[in-house]
Amino acid sequence: MNIELNEDERLDDLLAEGLKIIQSPQVFSFSLDAVLLAKFAYVPIRKSGSIVDLCTGNGAIPLFLSGRSKAQITGVELQPRLSDMANRSVTLNGLEDRIRIVTGDVKGIAEILGHEKHDTVTCNPPYFPAHELSDRNMLEEVAVARHELYLTLDQAIENASALLKQGGKAAFVHRPGRLLDIVTSMRQHRLEPKRIRFVYPKRGREANTLLIEGTKDGRPDLKILPPLYVYEDDGTYTPEVREMLYGPHA
Amino acid sequence: MNIELNEDERLDDLLAEGLKIIQSPQVFSFSLDAVLLAKFAYVPIRKSGSIVDLCTGNGAIPLFLSGRSKAQITGVELQPRLSDMANRSVTLNGLEDRIRIVTGDVKGIAEILGHEKHDTVTCNPPYFPAHELSDRNMLEEVAVARHELYLTLDQAIENASALLKQGGKAAFVHRPGRLLDIVTSMRQHRLEPKRIRFVYPKRGREANTLLIEGTKDGRPDLKILPPLYVYEDDGTYTPEVREMLYGPHA
Repeated sequence: MNIELNEDERLDDLLAEGLKIIQSPQVFSFSLDAVLLAKFAYVPIRKSGSIVDLCTGNGAIPLFLSGRSKAQITGVELQPRLSDMANRSVTLNGLEDRIRIVTGDVKGIAEILGHEKHDTVTCNPPYFPAHELSDRNMLEEVAVARHELYLTLDQAIENASALLKQGGKAAFVHRPGRLLDIVTSMRQHRLEPKRIRFVYPKRGREANTLLIEGTKDGRPDLKILPPLYVYEDDGTYTPEVREMLYGPHA
Repeated sequence: MNIELNEDERLDDLLAEGLKIIQSPQVFSFSLDAVLLAKFAYVPIRKSGSIVDLCTGNGAIPLFLSGRSKAQITGVELQPRLSDMANRSVTLNGLEDRIRIVTGDVKGIAEILGHEKHDTVTCNPPYFPAHELSDRNMLEEVAVARHELYLTLDQAIENASALLKQGGKAAFVHRPGRLLDIVTSMRQHRLEPKRIRFVYPKRGREANTLLIEGTKDGRPDLKILPPLYVYEDDGTYTPEVREMLYGPHA
């Protein structure tokens, strides 16, 4: 396999999946949140299933999901510099028949990928409001991936819903401070929240991450799952997170 | 002190507070949820503060709160049989100068207790929708306390808000399945959700209780507090709950 790496890029191992991923410390690297979302989401496992990952970045979530599902996975990324990384990672892992990367805007994506056609949508959207973008020296790729410059939370949810079949599932990762915005927007866009899991950096701390899944046109029945702790008191990963990152025999 | 007990009643100890409470196993006994709410709520500690506990039942929450605050505490209870128990418990503990029990409907209670006048409102409302009342042999007092027969969740929230000063706090305990209804209703009634704590029966289980506090006309800034576990794996109370029930030196 002859995949070229740009000067700023490196090849990292996704140990739990036995895959490789192209990352750039300056431009884009996936975060733990992508790992958490990929493990949290319900996905169809059959080959005929269809999953769409919005705001896919360098394609980490599609790569993770390919280890859990035989379904067709489509990653959507606005920024060509990132979708190019994602595409090369797909080729590098020989997953071209299962993962497709689309360079384009999430807004209106159902016009391209089909309305009410998909089983699962995952999305790790930009977390920060556009007006909080204070560092004008931030690399544009980083600013766009982190801030709601081209895609608001409500737009992410609206477009996720447009892609989903009735009964299909949309899973998001975000900050707990946006919980009320997320559930309000989900209900507005026919996604009934069904499962929430809060992620805590350590025991005794406030949650810093929210995983939420809703079912299109589902009936109200919300479950709050057991908490997930990332670090032990000594700063090492908890067994649950270690297994997500390194696999069951780590 | 000469307080008469009805035949079905007994006198229980509130060990953490060094108080006594009249309960009736048949008619009404306070639940752990009342303890959790009384410990969770922010309360004014100064003597000039004012706290209202809606749906006070046999007055457990006012009694608990009297151990944390010098404020005036008013308990509101619709059912005379329960408010009578509460009143006798207040007298029994010599707390008549700090706790007042009002027999009456929560709906419109601000007409009696004053609009926008109070610092904190607590409420452990009926949890179950009226249409889920299947056991027609259930004692009426029990049915009214548990089911939304005379007070819906939205009415409880609306009336809590009416009592509160700007910046005052309302704290509720409920089931996690109603989270979306609660936060939607709170925002509609000017109570901005600020703190949520989920209570889990044991580690590894789904949450079965929700504690939520909002600030009247507060700005959005929601925190998800560390989880609270009630039981250890061996079925004994966790240290945190044991301390709530029996005090710091239990």
